Amino acid sequence: MLVVGARDVPVRSGDAGRLARPRRVGKLSAGSTRGGFVAPRVKCAPVTAIPGEFAPPARLLLGPGPSEVHPRVLRAMSAPLVGHLDPAFIAMMEEVKALLRFVFATENTLTFPVSGTGSAGMEACIVNLVEPGDEVVVGVNGVFGTRMADVIERAGGVAVRVEAPWGRVVRPEQVEAALRKCRRPKLVALVHAETSTGAWQPLPDAARLAHEHGALFLADCVTSLGGAPVEVDRWGIDAAYSGTQKCLSCPPGLAPITFGPRALAALGKRTTRVQSWYLDLTLLSQYWGEERVYHHTAPISMNYALREALRLVAEEGLEARFARHGKNHEALAAGLGALGLALAAEEGHRLPMLNAVTVPDGVDEARVRTRLLAEHGIEIGGGLGPMKGKVWRIGLMGESSRRAHVLTVLAALEDALRAEGRRVPPGAALAAAQSVYAA
Amino acid sequence: MLVVGARDVPVRSGDAGRLARPRRVGKLSAGSTRGGFVAPRVKCAPVTAIPGEFAPPARLLLGPGPSEVHPRVLRAMSAPLVGHLDPAFIAMMEEVKALLRFVFATENTLTFPVSGTGSAGMEACIVNLVEPGDEVVVGVNGVFGTRMADVIERAGGVAVRVEAPWGRVVRPEQVEAALRKCRRPKLVALVHAETSTGAWQPLPDAARLAHEHGALFLADCVTSLGGAPVEVDRWGIDAAYSGTQKCLSCPPGLAPITFGPRALAALGKRTTRVQSWYLDLTLLSQYWGEERVYHHTAPISMNYALREALRLVAEEGLEARFARHGKNHEALAAGLGALGLALAAEEGHRLPMLNAVTVPDGVDEARVRTRLLAEHGIEIGGGLGPMKGKVWRIGLMGESSRRAHVLTVLAALEDALRAEGRRVPPGAALAAAQSVYAA
Repeated sequence: MLVVGARDVPVRSGDAGRLARPRRVGKLSAGSTRGGFVAPRVKCAPVTAIPGEFAPPARLLLGPGPSEVHPRVLRAMSAPLVGHLDPAFIAMMEEVKALLRFVFATENTLTFPVSGTGSAGMEACIVNLVEPGDEVVVGVNGVFGTRMADVIERAGGVAVRVEAPWGRVVRPEQVEAALRKCRRPKLVALVHAETSTGAWQPLPDAARLAHEHGALFLADCVTSLGGAPVEVDRWGIDAAYSGTQKCLSCPPGLAPITFGPRALAALGKRTTRVQSWYLDLTLLSQYWGEERVYHHTAPISMNYALREALRLVAEEGLEARFARHGKNHEALAAGLGALGLALAAEEGHRLPMLNAVTVPDGVDEARVRTRLLAEHGIEIGGGLGPMKGKVWRIGLMGESSRRAHVLTVLAALEDALRAEGRRVPPGAALAAAQSVYAA
Repeated sequence: MLVVGARDVPVRSGDAGRLARPRRVGKLSAGSTRGGFVAPRVKCAPVTAIPGEFAPPARLLLGPGPSEVHPRVLRAMSAPLVGHLDPAFIAMMEEVKALLRFVFATENTLTFPVSGTGSAGMEACIVNLVEPGDEVVVGVNGVFGTRMADVIERAGGVAVRVEAPWGRVVRPEQVEAALRKCRRPKLVALVHAETSTGAWQPLPDAARLAHEHGALFLADCVTSLGGAPVEVDRWGIDAAYSGTQKCLSCPPGLAPITFGPRALAALGKRTTRVQSWYLDLTLLSQYWGEERVYHHTAPISMNYALREALRLVAEEGLEARFARHGKNHEALAAGLGALGLALAAEEGHRLPMLNAVTVPDGVDEARVRTRLLAEHGIEIGGGLGPMKGKVWRIGLMGESSRRAHVLTVLAALEDALRAEGRRVPPGAALAAAQSVYAA
């Protein structure tokens, strides 16, 4: 057996087969002309031999994503590969596009999965729509709105932030006021489902206001797509992006996006080049469109997986799927209430698929999460940014949104809260959830 | 069964579950304020029902990638998911990093897979190393050098092109002359294995010259890594990127990269922000380093696959793997010679894993490829750019580099050439190949 990175075994050096020893970086070699640098704090664990087969522990994924993946999707993903220009793959791409149009409720031709995760979808939309100096009104009420503003500024745009406290949504009058402040707004960008807070942002009014001011409307639908209505055409969304590992219940790795006619027109009128070659939609549309010009090698297996995940969505039907997400959210919320726990997002704007739960005083947020993982194999998420240590995030997305999982996580939370010294009535949470299902 | 995009079935409209009909874009709605746009030529095929399970045709992948994938890798990829911050996944990340250091022959701490394909790796390296105004000497002798220059310019860099005819390599004296022309060169960038031409670019002299002129050295190792020596530390490569779907024989979707101390120092001395949030190495290193700060959701299943593919590489050993690639290339070249076919890359600089074969006069390039695919299930590649229609590209990468495949493709090519009216002696190619193996 080859030994990788061992410290006390003979290591051949200087030839192609030599074995790498991890070490800290930071000290530059004497010959370097570039000193004075403090290396980022990265360290690697020593690996002393070729590791064995990876055996992932059994987990119930009830965090902010990835969500549970249906066995059919795992099986589809493990099919032998074909080439990215194979006629069979090209036909498959068309099916993926048609299925994505279905879940996005759009007729947009340019609807396809970008070869990266949801954040690559965000970046793809922004770098194609925003040119240096463009004013962009962006809602900032959580991690992902903050991220959007960051990406807008890296693209040379002027981010006009519309802020709301974390857990609350942005109001149309705030969007309108921001649009009035702009000289010539190019884009309004909102996060439909703020995964960091559980807030459910209404979009149609903001889209209408954007258009009234001559701006485009961009929606982050990473967490909402496939779990709550996303009506791209009817709501006037000009561009939207999503991720595969949330309510589509596909492994992470692709970012479905859709661009409508107005967004394409803006693309056609650019006076500067798109700063990203990898995410340049004009080039990408030549591969995903009818020319089939090679751009990059599409992630074949991930597209197999996405196609199967979308087939499952279509078989269930969108309305049934949204109703399922709604019902399981309701049951979870009832159970949490019986445990004395409250949701962090404002009432009336709570997402069905992502529940940010306020951690009660005296309870150790991380310890509860660790207990759920270690004792029950359940993953839930912690808080991000200002909500770090203050909330748990329970995701009921796609395949994770099941009655069995709601009951399982409520029972585990009851145990964990009791272990934290809270007095919780045994079974009350389960009964509360069950009464929602029985209703 | 739901019907997606059908034209002659009742379609509910206006509600969340409505079904999307594909159509041509291009005509803008009357209310649009942005006219005069000619839409890109994209069209979608009509999809009239939920497609059935995807059954990929059996293919032998002997093109420029993706290559054949070992069943162990497909199986590893189909394991149930864990979260991207799960302790089990974090431990796995360390193993992936250690195994990547082994194939890159480096001790660089910052060695990990970027969540995109090889071109995302290219873009990650360039946008992190190049700031606006930076001079970059870049070898341009094929598609990928051309792409590098494009990405450099999109990052605001000044691309100082060192050109060579397609199929030939860039000479050290050309690199030196270009460096002398620069005011203050920041980077020298070369493609190690030019997938479009089959040319094998030597790197050590160019790396030395870069350092003598105070510049960094970046190598595109997309097609070489795992199939030919890539000695990051010994050759003085400061940054390198690769792809998974070539000689690592893993499905496409990740781009292994490595950054050495000098490259990290340059990162630390940047005066401008990295234009890409998704590919910002300072942020990425906080997730792949010891902080484990959430950046984006890593493609879990793709990392499972990469880990298993790298285990196969380590089990075989790099020297044995390189020897295997060399031997199969030699046998293929002998067989091609017996068919009267010549390699397009210059002698002495021919890649073992990618063979660009000159199409003889009177032979229809595309027809031969189509015949191989349709009659034999063999995928080989066509030419790109100025080589379009003039070469075939036969890849013998990773699992594709096997004696059985060499013999199979030679036999099929013999058939196809005969069908094109060429007089080829039956079995001569096989005999020539076999005599290499017998030697």
